[in-house]
Amino acid sequence: MKFLHIHDANFDAEFAAILARGEETGREVEQVVLDIIAAVRAQGDVALLDYTRRFDRLEAGSVAALEVTEDEFNEAFARVEEADMAALKLAVERVARFHEKQKQETWLSTDETDILLGQMVTPLERVGIYVPGGKASYPSSVIMNAVPAKVAGVGEVIMVAPTPGGEINPHVLVAARLSGVDRVFRLGGAQAVAALAYGTATVPRVDKVTGPGNIYVATAKKLVFGQVGIDMIAGPSEILVINDGSGTPAHIAADLLSQAEHDELASSILITTDRDFGERVAAEVERQLKELSRESIARKSWECYGAVIVAGTLDEAIVFSNRIAPEHLELAVADPFAILPKIRNAGAIFLGHFTPEAAGDYLAGPNHTLPTGGTARFFSPLSVDDFVKKSSIVYFSQGGLNRLGKDIVRIAELEGLEAHGKSVSIRLW
Amino acid sequence: MKFLHIHDANFDAEFAAILARGEETGREVEQVVLDIIAAVRAQGDVALLDYTRRFDRLEAGSVAALEVTEDEFNEAFARVEEADMAALKLAVERVARFHEKQKQETWLSTDETDILLGQMVTPLERVGIYVPGGKASYPSSVIMNAVPAKVAGVGEVIMVAPTPGGEINPHVLVAARLSGVDRVFRLGGAQAVAALAYGTATVPRVDKVTGPGNIYVATAKKLVFGQVGIDMIAGPSEILVINDGSGTPAHIAADLLSQAEHDELASSILITTDRDFGERVAAEVERQLKELSRESIARKSWECYGAVIVAGTLDEAIVFSNRIAPEHLELAVADPFAILPKIRNAGAIFLGHFTPEAAGDYLAGPNHTLPTGGTARFFSPLSVDDFVKKSSIVYFSQGGLNRLGKDIVRIAELEGLEAHGKSVSIRLW
Repeated sequence: MKFLHIHDANFDAEFAAILARGEETGREVEQVVLDIIAAVRAQGDVALLDYTRRFDRLEAGSVAALEVTEDEFNEAFARVEEADMAALKLAVERVARFHEKQKQETWLSTDETDILLGQMVTPLERVGIYVPGGKASYPSSVIMNAVPAKVAGVGEVIMVAPTPGGEINPHVLVAARLSGVDRVFRLGGAQAVAALAYGTATVPRVDKVTGPGNIYVATAKKLVFGQVGIDMIAGPSEILVINDGSGTPAHIAADLLSQAEHDELASSILITTDRDFGERVAAEVERQLKELSRESIARKSWECYGAVIVAGTLDEAIVFSNRIAPEHLELAVADPFAILPKIRNAGAIFLGHFTPEAAGDYLAGPNHTLPTGGTARFFSPLSVDDFVKKSSIVYFSQGGLNRLGKDIVRIAELEGLEAHGKSVSIRLW
Repeated sequence: MKFLHIHDANFDAEFAAILARGEETGREVEQVVLDIIAAVRAQGDVALLDYTRRFDRLEAGSVAALEVTEDEFNEAFARVEEADMAALKLAVERVARFHEKQKQETWLSTDETDILLGQMVTPLERVGIYVPGGKASYPSSVIMNAVPAKVAGVGEVIMVAPTPGGEINPHVLVAARLSGVDRVFRLGGAQAVAALAYGTATVPRVDKVTGPGNIYVATAKKLVFGQVGIDMIAGPSEILVINDGSGTPAHIAADLLSQAEHDELASSILITTDRDFGERVAAEVERQLKELSRESIARKSWECYGAVIVAGTLDEAIVFSNRIAPEHLELAVADPFAILPKIRNAGAIFLGHFTPEAAGDYLAGPNHTLPTGGTARFFSPLSVDDFVKKSSIVYFSQGGLNRLGKDIVRIAELEGLEAHGKSVSIRLW
């Protein structure tokens, strides 16, 4: 962990090491993934079965046999405890309610009497959701991807998840069913992304692939971008807490650790105007670390990419925050709404002393799929917008074309596109 | 040109050749572009000057000297004819008015008394617009990229355009100034994209790069995606006209040719329920082709990628259209609004017999930057949405956290993320 003052001469250099933690994809990974995509395009199901056997140690006679059956869903529902079921249902319900508010309507403007202009919003027909398997299994990830798709009106949601040895987590299956996922295949890795992007005899081609995954999955998504839509490219997770000396150090320490436990590459940063508060948070982190089941991951993250930064003023802290554009931003200050309008770049903003980031991770309502690594400068949280597309609507009456025709022809001609102009003039003159 | 019936046994195979016209980026182009990006990152302005000398035959002592000056803007304004100036002003005004309607507001939900949830919309701080130079010079392209950015509230719009020999088109400069572009650099190619994405001593780093370009520019945009945002990846342009036998064959022929004149890879397709109408359109295309200044380009496009397709019913034509997801779709039918709701995938939809696509290209109001090559399945027209990003807002009162805390902890635990749970429980219990 670095303890820095924002006015330190070497502050920028010290901090650069934290910012630079994201790995760039090597060309070797890219070549492996290109080969996998080519094989899936050429051989379809045969390639899928082959890769699934090799990478997931899962033998199947057909890709159809890798689809989760109704019986397996029923079994999963039977295995999940009542209180967990209630929590998952609450999450689905709250996430759906929030995302409902993001829906946009088709509109048509009647500002002019001779021309109608508008924008039509239609849902994607079919999307694919990638859910990581193996060690960590996250039903919340299923909910955060599937619910916005369903709220958007997507016709069919296909989920893929690698299942080493065939095992699939019952909470993940329950979350899938509660969220409205239509079909689930035991497929993972770059091959699953390729199957969704291009389709095989068994796996239908989708219009967009979303969801987190390892470097092979992320690379595959980047490489199929254009053939299908993808959500943002996610890097390691991060939190920035802005503090003014108010609040409880142990609470902030817990929030920093909730980020640090994700991943050794995660980054947890406190920027405070109160050096003493910062020191107490640092001490609390040390104390709480020892109590964590995921201590070694959290400790490594905190040691390598954790920081406590002292700022001269709250405005300095805000300028810093806008510069790094954090994925998660806590405004752990006495009057968080007073500084909200100064925040320009952040994935999600958690206001006040009773809004730990973890609330947003599961069931506050907003999406937990957020832009990382400074990309909140231009990316948005996953939303209903990701599962619809728009079409412009243009209607000219003869009078409307007559009114604007000469100007259209004028621009066509100065661009040297004569046939463009003729398509207008032939209707009028 | 192919004259096909949608029920032909070999229809899908015949049509596949038209769909497959988009070029995939070769690995060689990618390697060239990777090298250019690396050089610009490492050497900044020096690399820019070197590439500009080599690729644009333009010698300059500094990158600052490549920036268009106020005097040059004034000179451009003096050179543009009055009627052209009026047409460009009308285009800017109409495009701005349409895009104003796309603006989304920040919202905050007060559905619950103890929790506030919302979504904050903020403009990108700085964007870069690529404008192709050389042979074809398109002021409309400047307008269609810069106006939505300015309507969105982007702080600074930086335009780059290659200027072989230093020449810059006065209509392009006038369009830039009228659209609110802040700075213009005589830079092009992959090096200009790299400079915008990473910044150099002279060219400021932007948050997003939009605009069309050749294969090097498109590849550079794809490779810097993630470092900055980009708009969609554009392929060759296309039009599909749906017709029911109503209207005038010469008009439809003119529309097909307005697309064909763009580019030898452009594709113009008519699908009609009336074989006789289709034959008359084909004959008209032949007749009009001979009158075009860009005859050779248009003829090549029409011969290779043009088609007249006879459909059994209008519904069959619509199903076909939805399958290919055309960039431009004309509903040249007697009652276009009756079929509008059946259109699922299209970039822009032009309704009725007096709405040639060219109207939308310049000044109807909607954007002319549209998803090509079937990507209207998941991409939308360029819009104000491309120049803003969103941040989720989450505020829990102590009562709100108390109400939902147990369920948050429950999900954290079933995901094995203990510290997540602790960040909630430490505040409550």
